[in-house]
Amino acid sequence: MSPDAPAPLPPAARRFLTGLFPGDAAVFSPEETCVFGTDASRRHALPAAVVRPETEEQVRELLRFAHAERLPIHCRGRGTNTVGDCVPAPSGIVISTARFAEILEIAEDDFVAVCRPGLVTGDLQAALAEKRLFYPPDPASVRFSTLGGNVATCAGGMRALKYGVTRDFVLGIRAILPGGEAIDTGGRTHKNVTGLDLTRLLVGSEGTLAFFSEITVKLLPLPEATATALCAHADADAALAAAGDIFRAGMLPAAMEFVDRTCLAAVAACRPLPWGEQAGAALLVRLDGSEGALAADLARLEGIFAGRGPLFVRTAREKAEQETLWEVRTTLNQASFRVAPDKISDDVTVPRGAIRAAVARIQDVAAQERLPILVFGHVGDGNLHVNIMHHAADPDERGRALAAREEILGLTLALGGTLSGEHGVGLSKLPFLDRQIGPGERGLMRRIKAVFDPHGIMNPGKAY
Amino acid sequence: MSPDAPAPLPPAARRFLTGLFPGDAAVFSPEETCVFGTDASRRHALPAAVVRPETEEQVRELLRFAHAERLPIHCRGRGTNTVGDCVPAPSGIVISTARFAEILEIAEDDFVAVCRPGLVTGDLQAALAEKRLFYPPDPASVRFSTLGGNVATCAGGMRALKYGVTRDFVLGIRAILPGGEAIDTGGRTHKNVTGLDLTRLLVGSEGTLAFFSEITVKLLPLPEATATALCAHADADAALAAAGDIFRAGMLPAAMEFVDRTCLAAVAACRPLPWGEQAGAALLVRLDGSEGALAADLARLEGIFAGRGPLFVRTAREKAEQETLWEVRTTLNQASFRVAPDKISDDVTVPRGAIRAAVARIQDVAAQERLPILVFGHVGDGNLHVNIMHHAADPDERGRALAAREEILGLTLALGGTLSGEHGVGLSKLPFLDRQIGPGERGLMRRIKAVFDPHGIMNPGKAY
Repeated sequence: MSPDAPAPLPPAARRFLTGLFPGDAAVFSPEETCVFGTDASRRHALPAAVVRPETEEQVRELLRFAHAERLPIHCRGRGTNTVGDCVPAPSGIVISTARFAEILEIAEDDFVAVCRPGLVTGDLQAALAEKRLFYPPDPASVRFSTLGGNVATCAGGMRALKYGVTRDFVLGIRAILPGGEAIDTGGRTHKNVTGLDLTRLLVGSEGTLAFFSEITVKLLPLPEATATALCAHADADAALAAAGDIFRAGMLPAAMEFVDRTCLAAVAACRPLPWGEQAGAALLVRLDGSEGALAADLARLEGIFAGRGPLFVRTAREKAEQETLWEVRTTLNQASFRVAPDKISDDVTVPRGAIRAAVARIQDVAAQERLPILVFGHVGDGNLHVNIMHHAADPDERGRALAAREEILGLTLALGGTLSGEHGVGLSKLPFLDRQIGPGERGLMRRIKAVFDPHGIMNPGKAY
Repeated sequence: MSPDAPAPLPPAARRFLTGLFPGDAAVFSPEETCVFGTDASRRHALPAAVVRPETEEQVRELLRFAHAERLPIHCRGRGTNTVGDCVPAPSGIVISTARFAEILEIAEDDFVAVCRPGLVTGDLQAALAEKRLFYPPDPASVRFSTLGGNVATCAGGMRALKYGVTRDFVLGIRAILPGGEAIDTGGRTHKNVTGLDLTRLLVGSEGTLAFFSEITVKLLPLPEATATALCAHADADAALAAAGDIFRAGMLPAAMEFVDRTCLAAVAACRPLPWGEQAGAALLVRLDGSEGALAADLARLEGIFAGRGPLFVRTAREKAEQETLWEVRTTLNQASFRVAPDKISDDVTVPRGAIRAAVARIQDVAAQERLPILVFGHVGDGNLHVNIMHHAADPDERGRALAAREEILGLTLALGGTLSGEHGVGLSKLPFLDRQIGPGERGLMRRIKAVFDPHGIMNPGKAY
């Protein structure tokens, strides 16, 4: 038995699952379940079984059984989680939402959509755009990750600056509790203050409380148009100062992304950058609104940029042209693997005013550990994506990469920040959580979990 | 002893309070405590004692004692709650936050403010405006109500349409639990996904979980300018159709308020309305943004209005001129009492697409019960303020007013709505809550309360 082989499922449990999930809707052999044992954290644990429900009733039956039999349950969308939330350790039953993925309703006049958890968020957005409707949250994984997973981690994204995160768009959840009971939290009104806010307690709970059967999200009217400005500066300080100027002018862009020198070098190795001189940082700003309003705002933005002596400024209003400007940001992940084959990725977040200090200190860590560290992210939210590039096969480099990570988490907390702005805690950040959250608060979280899940079967050992 | 006289405080408790709260910081006589026994619900119960802490340590000591002695605790800001959340029944100790009201910090670069709960929200907004910062939530009571109260009820307001409600702006809370333990939830980063979301569980908890000692709110850059458009229509349908057109054009105004025929008549009795013909409804729209962008958006808005054959349209960009237009809405409360001396006020909320049906059915109820019912509110949120005007001294009228209220709550739920969009449940709506929230969900809420407050001393018997 390999070290990560699961405890074998009791024969009665296997019979139960086979009966409830006919055909290939339940699989047990390592060959079939293996792929459901990992996620973007690159951790792995072999599931005891994987089931693919198509109906809520199947999930209710399963949670009745698992609750009674004390079997761990791991809910899984597309496995894009970066902190191990989808890794079934301790071994248990993985519920894949791949076949529980419909858009149940798009209510245009209510500005509401009701969806199954397995729906890919980007597919929802595409369906909405046809009706000139808009679901703003846009995690980088939006074309692959599911709404259920986004809700379970309170996914953010570039547009969080103006529009907020997933939490701000979830109006109601129909959830199945361990034991099989279905609850309906919230509703389909845009405002609702009746009783404790169970809806937002479920959002970001990383699969530890309940299975989400139906998710009702708030929609906005799709803005008429968007525009993009790309601005390159001599160094990070100048770029971040320009970001501050934008806020001081009373502007709240739809997105504002920062890309540091190491990132620019990585991208430049893949494709020519649109500026001649050596730039030390770039700022990408997306505006949205009415056509006429955008023209005025874009002119204003150019004036603000000019005040910080940029090396390069370009604006775009055509979609294709905008996407070209955004390539400095969107090609980063791909470009990063040209720098080194392995990556430790973090999404530390600091108070907005501490972002210049955070970038400078992370660059110090990079120098000290002699590793390329890419720093980019949602500067408006203080949310920095940090990619520590290294050769994991080299034990010394791996050691320095892990040391760098720990230093970066430490400096983040020292600056009043948080271990995670978007990805969650999962398994990867759990060892660090005590540095941020005290025993009183963690005790409350665990006792609240026990209210939903008294036997602790839902994604046990994760998140808090 | 009058029927609502409280159970007398045990002598030891009185000694404890007098020691902890010297001078007039603790009062016991009905003459002094009476005013702390009511709120905008017009209900009343005499407190056993009222204390006015100036330090967190006093609150911690008090909650240690009250927890041990099983004494009910009622937190109170300025008593603007409309559903009885501030009414100390069952009788207990009222904690007034009147002397616990400082702005602890405005961190301009972090876009964060840290405040004590007794701070009047309008005072915070005024202090922020001097620094070109913006805390959007604007309940009608904003000039009188406190941040602590706003957080306890998840207050909304006109700007919720574009910016969201109080929940969306609370980043962290330092709270004192029964027993005296202090917990720190969330933080001062704009994004944070570590552990269960205790912060938003506290928001809207109506004083039932903990005392809020420090509240950290997210700030936005203050928009450069605002503009207002007032548009009068022949009937509610035309006005609400115009509201739909605005959304369909991809516009998301900062506020969009609807005022019905009965409201217009009430206002007209106080001051001349700016249109000659008889209008059946009006729509008020506020835009905000950069000066140049606003000019473009305002022109667009006028074009949209024109498509529904309005009786009257006026726009304004100067502050004073805007306020004149808003008087149709802001004078409503005062005007309503010219219609009749007594009011039953509700803040029912329906899915946005059901608002035309809701307005029509409420008007039917008014006709059937032969009572003037003012309907106005945040049309973009589906949130209608309903004022059932009547003479409470006339038992028949009072009976019809109560019947009208029940019918309106019923039709709201039948349309998929919620009993409360802004005010909360408190005492007034508690008898109706079972019609909206099932026993499973209420059971979870109560068990979560028990995690925070095992002896049930915090605002007992309210909200859920």
